[in-house]
Amino acid sequence: MKTEFTCVAQERLRALCFQVMQKLGETEKNAHIIADVLIAADLRGIDSHGVARLGMYEGFIQSGVIHTHVEPRLLAETPTTALFDAGGGMGHPVSYRAMNMAIDKAKAYGIGFVTVRNSNHYGIAGYYAMMALTHNCIGMSMTNSRAFVVPTFARDALLGTNPIAVAAPAGKERPFVLDMATSTVPFGKIEVYNRLEKPIPEGWASDENGVPTTDAAKVIRNSSSPATHGGLEPLGGNGELLSGHKGYGLGLLVEVLCGVLPGALYANQVYPQTQDGKPLPAGLGHVFGALRVDAFRPVEEFAASMDDLQQRMKTASKASGQERIYIHGEKEYEQVERRSVEGIPLNHKVLAELEKIAQRYNIEFRI
Amino acid sequence: MKTEFTCVAQERLRALCFQVMQKLGETEKNAHIIADVLIAADLRGIDSHGVARLGMYEGFIQSGVIHTHVEPRLLAETPTTALFDAGGGMGHPVSYRAMNMAIDKAKAYGIGFVTVRNSNHYGIAGYYAMMALTHNCIGMSMTNSRAFVVPTFARDALLGTNPIAVAAPAGKERPFVLDMATSTVPFGKIEVYNRLEKPIPEGWASDENGVPTTDAAKVIRNSSSPATHGGLEPLGGNGELLSGHKGYGLGLLVEVLCGVLPGALYANQVYPQTQDGKPLPAGLGHVFGALRVDAFRPVEEFAASMDDLQQRMKTASKASGQERIYIHGEKEYEQVERRSVEGIPLNHKVLAELEKIAQRYNIEFRI
Repeated sequence: MKTEFTCVAQERLRALCFQVMQKLGETEKNAHIIADVLIAADLRGIDSHGVARLGMYEGFIQSGVIHTHVEPRLLAETPTTALFDAGGGMGHPVSYRAMNMAIDKAKAYGIGFVTVRNSNHYGIAGYYAMMALTHNCIGMSMTNSRAFVVPTFARDALLGTNPIAVAAPAGKERPFVLDMATSTVPFGKIEVYNRLEKPIPEGWASDENGVPTTDAAKVIRNSSSPATHGGLEPLGGNGELLSGHKGYGLGLLVEVLCGVLPGALYANQVYPQTQDGKPLPAGLGHVFGALRVDAFRPVEEFAASMDDLQQRMKTASKASGQERIYIHGEKEYEQVERRSVEGIPLNHKVLAELEKIAQRYNIEFRI
Repeated sequence: MKTEFTCVAQERLRALCFQVMQKLGETEKNAHIIADVLIAADLRGIDSHGVARLGMYEGFIQSGVIHTHVEPRLLAETPTTALFDAGGGMGHPVSYRAMNMAIDKAKAYGIGFVTVRNSNHYGIAGYYAMMALTHNCIGMSMTNSRAFVVPTFARDALLGTNPIAVAAPAGKERPFVLDMATSTVPFGKIEVYNRLEKPIPEGWASDENGVPTTDAAKVIRNSSSPATHGGLEPLGGNGELLSGHKGYGLGLLVEVLCGVLPGALYANQVYPQTQDGKPLPAGLGHVFGALRVDAFRPVEEFAASMDDLQQRMKTASKASGQERIYIHGEKEYEQVERRSVEGIPLNHKVLAELEKIAQRYNIEFRI
């Protein structure tokens, strides 16, 4: 199967996202934030979370999963913590505000930890963690998500892919940016293999009996809502032999922090529907943390050690057949450099969908 | 190979640890803490971190890896954070103090985060995370450790097994206690397969070329200090196919938080030696966090949701051939119940070593 790509300048895509979000009812400020999170994903090479999602958000707003014209409400606050209710609105603006609050609290008290309930899909977790970097803080963000992951020894999907993101500044080296789903792979990888009609590696997904499968089409069929039989394996794969219970534990940890702690929905409660099948807001929860580096060490010392730690990895002896050892975030920073110049490669299906969205809202969109 | 076990009452083992630690130069208070952490490991079924380690600590104290007669020094403090220098002493007492400080700060400000540098092996990470439970806090602890883990695409061991522990209270259900090394398996599992002369599963370790191996004896030979060629795979295994880079990222994250942030040693710097080969303190670092549940929700509401989350997992449909879905910490709580009554099973090799240690210090130790 041949896929053709067209490179589109980020400014054009950013303008499209911004205008569509305004037409859908978001304020100018919110539309800017949403566009920035989406374009950041595309620039970083996380194509599954960029402009390709614009249609999903549009659909969610039209069907009532996402509310517009809502303001987050601050429900609880201590010197170092806070809890927001997102009112069923878009996940990005409330998350941007919550992360900024965590950073402010870290600056004042050393550490800040802010949670959000009653929210929706918030884009890439790494975006919010990275907001801490320019403040010389270590940043953290997690979110729960639609249940695609099968707990160890279970048959059905009960947990989200539940990403964990942590960003730490460095000196001459780039920041360390870990942004990982707690499943072995994201659902999008199953879809790619299905399109290519390739068997998936064993360890990515299990079938309707909770048994490892290599059949991508079956995994996709089984996952169709509301009956989610089988699904993605947690990091570590099926059972306990390669420690799939650790990935399951990390996924459950994210449900505890993002679902239970802020009083959001969790596990297979998320994306609820009314009795007659009408979708309701996803009810997702997020957490955001910031930790001031200079509460522990002078920033320059910390940065020098971060550089040294990274150098130890990068300059280590390579495994047979390998030429390079990566630091987390490094591939993405290189993508940003490339795509800022060359534009963001969109396949023709995504591009056609964007053109249709632009037409629906009378937005000029020429690539 | 047949292994015979003798069950020994926890009180006898606790008394032995306490007395040995005092004879080795620890204060009464410190000796109590160390004994409690070791016995907690045995009770929980984490045999690799219990009394079987007493000989290791004795050797470390005698060789100069661990100093006695030292007091931790508080180097930095903010309302919510602190940094201790452990002075090269035992890891347990300083960690107990640091975790209590994190809890106190959480009570006063919502969250507390305390780090330690210049420390040594601190036992099981879960012990400290669980200290938060009776205070209705979520507890967290991590530590770096001797470099046994090979980064993705590398050939040699550069990272510790670097455990992450998080504990969260529940209501009628038991607390959620995640306590996991960020490698696929701990080194002890390789040793067990070696003793049984069984091949290890592919995904646990790589050889001196960074290539997956099933030869346990080779992995052990290769890991002999100071030349640590090959070693354990990060969670997710070799390469990126099953996302070994995520386990590598979690291991690196622990080095950032426990090594770089407090100014401890990190990666393959730990367990340094003088130029003529004399061992120095391990230079390990730890972090401890506590988060007050009622900063976000009433404790009863949180506990009820924790129970419901656990019930959703436990009562879900089981995978083909499976009869039970576990919550993290559940197996360990059941071990505590069993071993509190039946005693702690020790194999004859461990028991013989404990008897020799007791003799060396003129301590009465009858099982």
